[in-house]
Amino acid sequence: MKSITTIFLALTVGFAAMAQTPGNVKYVYTEASGLNLIGKILEGTPNPYHRVDTCRYKGFTQSENTQVRCSAGLAVLFKTNSSTISVKSEYGYYNNAPNTMGISLRGYDLYIKKDGKWLYAASRAGNPESDAPLVLISGMDRSEKECMLYLPIYSEMYSVKIGVEEGATLDRLESPFRHRIGIFGSSYTHGISTSRPGMSYPMQLMRDTGLQILNLGCNGNCKMQPYFADVLADADVDALIFDAFSNPSADMIKERLFPFIEKIQKAHPDIPLIFMQTIYREARNFNPVTDSLEQAKMDMAAGLMKEAIRKYDNVYFIVPDTGKDAHESSVDGTHPSDMGYMAWARSIKKPILRILKKYGL
Amino acid sequence: MKSITTIFLALTVGFAAMAQTPGNVKYVYTEASGLNLIGKILEGTPNPYHRVDTCRYKGFTQSENTQVRCSAGLAVLFKTNSSTISVKSEYGYYNNAPNTMGISLRGYDLYIKKDGKWLYAASRAGNPESDAPLVLISGMDRSEKECMLYLPIYSEMYSVKIGVEEGATLDRLESPFRHRIGIFGSSYTHGISTSRPGMSYPMQLMRDTGLQILNLGCNGNCKMQPYFADVLADADVDALIFDAFSNPSADMIKERLFPFIEKIQKAHPDIPLIFMQTIYREARNFNPVTDSLEQAKMDMAAGLMKEAIRKYDNVYFIVPDTGKDAHESSVDGTHPSDMGYMAWARSIKKPILRILKKYGL
Repeated sequence: MKSITTIFLALTVGFAAMAQTPGNVKYVYTEASGLNLIGKILEGTPNPYHRVDTCRYKGFTQSENTQVRCSAGLAVLFKTNSSTISVKSEYGYYNNAPNTMGISLRGYDLYIKKDGKWLYAASRAGNPESDAPLVLISGMDRSEKECMLYLPIYSEMYSVKIGVEEGATLDRLESPFRHRIGIFGSSYTHGISTSRPGMSYPMQLMRDTGLQILNLGCNGNCKMQPYFADVLADADVDALIFDAFSNPSADMIKERLFPFIEKIQKAHPDIPLIFMQTIYREARNFNPVTDSLEQAKMDMAAGLMKEAIRKYDNVYFIVPDTGKDAHESSVDGTHPSDMGYMAWARSIKKPILRILKKYGL
Repeated sequence: MKSITTIFLALTVGFAAMAQTPGNVKYVYTEASGLNLIGKILEGTPNPYHRVDTCRYKGFTQSENTQVRCSAGLAVLFKTNSSTISVKSEYGYYNNAPNTMGISLRGYDLYIKKDGKWLYAASRAGNPESDAPLVLISGMDRSEKECMLYLPIYSEMYSVKIGVEEGATLDRLESPFRHRIGIFGSSYTHGISTSRPGMSYPMQLMRDTGLQILNLGCNGNCKMQPYFADVLADADVDALIFDAFSNPSADMIKERLFPFIEKIQKAHPDIPLIFMQTIYREARNFNPVTDSLEQAKMDMAAGLMKEAIRKYDNVYFIVPDTGKDAHESSVDGTHPSDMGYMAWARSIKKPILRILKKYGL
């Protein structure tokens, strides 16, 4: 067996092999938060790349604290005529889980507008152990481009600096995304098992619909906690979507659902609260105990949501259908790959748009 | 910035979080190669998990040497009535690239037959730094099951032991896969950017068609090298498929294609040689130089293949179409995610079956 060094050699070689620093380019760096940082459910956090100010909101467990500081769902909008784009990062916490690609956990995902649509441009993992800048793309023509750069889903960023070549323009791009639609959810909403940050279903839905989605996905920790309800109550949102039945047990769903709805409705009496059924976990296929526990969660959610819709105004329930390739789209028995997230985003699109339309959104 | 320890803490926490060792189970382990190891293009390698005997075949570069020793495309077939399955591994080389999931690079992917079809059962990354066994699945009923366990795509395995609970059966499963179809290819065939070992397009094609695919994918190193032709010449195969235009430049394709075909036809005059066009790389979207270099490769391949089909018997050319979601399926500008590999496998299925049919396969 090789020593611990090998893992780092492999990592280093991996990073190096993907590097493509163009010769003789002098980059000028600008802090991304000074451009247009979109996707934040709460503005005004002292660290602009934190989703929640963990000094202001209390009650989070250590892992929840870590997660709400991660930049999942955030993106920077800018315009540039630079032929190359580079990033300099300072990481706080970062994650290396083997069920998600490094590019998604610790990396960047660049889209550029082409013919009116966001088109994939480049994606690369950052190396938290190195100060070397990360060249995302080079060799572009010098026309001004509209860029959207997704930040890492499972890293806390102290600083993200966008580098363009000396003499090139770099300007804030006004957001073309409409409204403020918050999503509170589990690992599934967080984007675990994606290949890159832009492939979580909220980000896919955002590109597809033009709606601004504000992602408060927290891996394993979406349990309708009252302190998360505090955050959501304070958020300036036009609608809220919940992936609320993935993490809690059936009993917890029973205990927490109605108080959670009531707390949020007190703050947001007139906006739609859209609950989604949880995913079918492929770990159910050959384990009867897992199967029945998961089914109990789904049954509890379906039963209570039927009641909630009668009991409360503005409450909705969506049951997504991820289609015939669902079994093949599992990464680890719980989370789907990009393919499954695409199927999910497409499945919820019409029902969500139909609901939002009722509210003039 | 956190210290190097963090990365290992994160890895460890990641592994621990996914562990689910059932209490009080005593596992009995059997070396996987003593069961039914399928997918090898050459039999009789001293290490059964090596695809090529690198003492016998000479000329490989260091990275090629490493890659042909990796277990990409290999799977173990067995039957068991154990309620839980565990794996004990000894790793040689292993890879940690951020553009492929750890589960695929260093992990295992278990399918079990259900209603006559292979159904996803479980998948987990191994930890090369730990001797602890990896529990893949537990809590199954005690009926005898037909299992297919894919091995890591980018690790050299010294030993892979399958563990079942004491008293349970563990037997060799005869392969239901037909014929011996070799594939020589690039990273794309190797399975880079997959989420788990069973999601490379050759493995998807194998499950979908029932054909046995023998995967000689070598990341970055499929360049129609004469020493790879030696390996392919010695292989006992009914057909060969080539992803031969992804790694070489246009000039290299020109120089090497016909001699490569001739060398292989000398050994296998009567079997179909099926060449596939290379993938559209999403790195082309905004880089005109990359775009034109890639197009030159594709044009060279298409032009020469037209000539090759006239010049040689039994030579074929397939141009896959990965459909409308191709742009979204890129992981890193070069490799697609599972979604893109699924589209590729589906696109080549009919043309390949049509060709094989001519040969009674």
